[in-house]
Amino acid sequence: MPEFDLIARIHARAATRRDVLLGIGDDAAILRVPPDRDLVVAMDTLNSGVHFPEDTAPADIGWKALAVNLSDLAAMAATPAWCTLSLSLPQPDAAWVDGFLDGFLALATQHEVALVGGDTTRGPLSICVTAHGLVDPRGALRRKGARVGDDVWVTGTLGDAAGALRQWQAGGAFDPALRARLDRPTPRVAAGRALAGIAGACIDVSDGLLADLGHVCRASRVGAVLDVDALPASDALRCAFDRETVRVLQSAGGDDYELCFTAPKTARLALESALFACDVPATRIGRITAEAVVIQLHDADGAAWSPPRRGYEHFGS
Amino acid sequence: MPEFDLIARIHARAATRRDVLLGIGDDAAILRVPPDRDLVVAMDTLNSGVHFPEDTAPADIGWKALAVNLSDLAAMAATPAWCTLSLSLPQPDAAWVDGFLDGFLALATQHEVALVGGDTTRGPLSICVTAHGLVDPRGALRRKGARVGDDVWVTGTLGDAAGALRQWQAGGAFDPALRARLDRPTPRVAAGRALAGIAGACIDVSDGLLADLGHVCRASRVGAVLDVDALPASDALRCAFDRETVRVLQSAGGDDYELCFTAPKTARLALESALFACDVPATRIGRITAEAVVIQLHDADGAAWSPPRRGYEHFGS
Repeated sequence: MPEFDLIARIHARAATRRDVLLGIGDDAAILRVPPDRDLVVAMDTLNSGVHFPEDTAPADIGWKALAVNLSDLAAMAATPAWCTLSLSLPQPDAAWVDGFLDGFLALATQHEVALVGGDTTRGPLSICVTAHGLVDPRGALRRKGARVGDDVWVTGTLGDAAGALRQWQAGGAFDPALRARLDRPTPRVAAGRALAGIAGACIDVSDGLLADLGHVCRASRVGAVLDVDALPASDALRCAFDRETVRVLQSAGGDDYELCFTAPKTARLALESALFACDVPATRIGRITAEAVVIQLHDADGAAWSPPRRGYEHFGS
Repeated sequence: MPEFDLIARIHARAATRRDVLLGIGDDAAILRVPPDRDLVVAMDTLNSGVHFPEDTAPADIGWKALAVNLSDLAAMAATPAWCTLSLSLPQPDAAWVDGFLDGFLALATQHEVALVGGDTTRGPLSICVTAHGLVDPRGALRRKGARVGDDVWVTGTLGDAAGALRQWQAGGAFDPALRARLDRPTPRVAAGRALAGIAGACIDVSDGLLADLGHVCRASRVGAVLDVDALPASDALRCAFDRETVRVLQSAGGDDYELCFTAPKTARLALESALFACDVPATRIGRITAEAVVIQLHDADGAAWSPPRRGYEHFGS
């Protein structure tokens, strides 16, 4: 099966939008950005065995490849619009591509994202996606924007995906609820949009809470103090691991794709009502301090705590 | 060396532009599209051993990774503006990245393209680039736009890169002029822009003339007849191969990154003067016919000719 048949297969299933003037099937796509919007562009690659276990279902790989990019757009408060997909496959496997598209397009449909181009190539399994979003020029969120005294918040729960990965690595029984969080992360698009104009700084938690909050602190030249026992955990995570392991997975694990953001104390009510409106839970986990790029953790009793390995600074994510 | 150091290394060397509101260093880039322009997006991946010989210099890989994308923008008559880069490397090799950037950024500078984001990941050597361009909504060129009776044109010379690949595969002596055409293709950006409003259809020749002109014919529901002896060849190609091989390399080889376009006969003077102004040679090689998707070739004596393998329809480019 030549490349063009795979592209035709993708083309046949890709939806379009009115602002796509030219989609799949030419040298490039032509897209119309409204005059009152800025363009937001994120690009992330998933490599087999590095970003997902080799036994991951094609549909889950498809979902995740788009989800990690939409999560980046969410962290900027952007509304997703279009994406391009570059798929490297060892063999031109039509059944694999069909499965991949099931997951990829399910998420694309959910967010009304049009797949407008890209390519298919021969090579080790690798998926590169570029996601394009639109944002109100006054409303974009950035890492630089945390102020001393701000609250630190996080959406959803932390540590589930890292817990699933640990169970997978151990090779024993695993919890399907945790595995679903690893394979099918939820990009917090509505929450990101709701935070525009309220939050100060925002980032998506992909490398682990401490590493990603570290990026916010570095960009904003501030520090943070966190209550490790306030970090939101799912019941599944608490059931599967002891308290210390839960803390490590939550603070230093990766692949959560929740939003971590800062906001002044005066914004608490506005925040809670904005996030309630889009049905996304959020938890206050600490506050921003003046000591640049120092993140301190304490437990519910006020005792200092730190994970065995600070952050999760890995080549490969 | 962790991922962030590689990104810092890239960030330190990447130029910016006034329309880049936020570049490398956040979850996504924020870009401003002028209200009178449409956005043009192309995405192409190069995998080691598939799209370039393993012994290719990092700087040449960098150049080519951007060039093949700018070539796609050129074929739409777009002006390049921004790009994102996803780099998968087996090891976080700083010297390799420095070399890669030498080539990548040399071409980016030439075309005033700002590198605004992307990622670095661990994996088999693979480079994915998304290029963004801007186009006058009335001036974009497409594959669909060839009319019966139109002339078929091509810029520059054909077959050089395929000739270099053949020499490399043979493992013997090679011509550096040909190899330079394989490693450092010239995206015909100025020519593409000059063709806006004059040409009917346009495509860049990446998979080989017959395959790519086939795409134009399919999109436009037309055919073509070409004079194989009119195909422009470099002296280096003519010196390195016999006449029959030259014909095959020119018609069925790939990686030329010249523009193949159609235009009415009445536009000949306008075309020649527009291309002369940007110093790009172009050659008339045939005409568009009514017989859909049939491309016939003849030689200078009018005898039918066809390559041993029609086109170059491969999974992997």
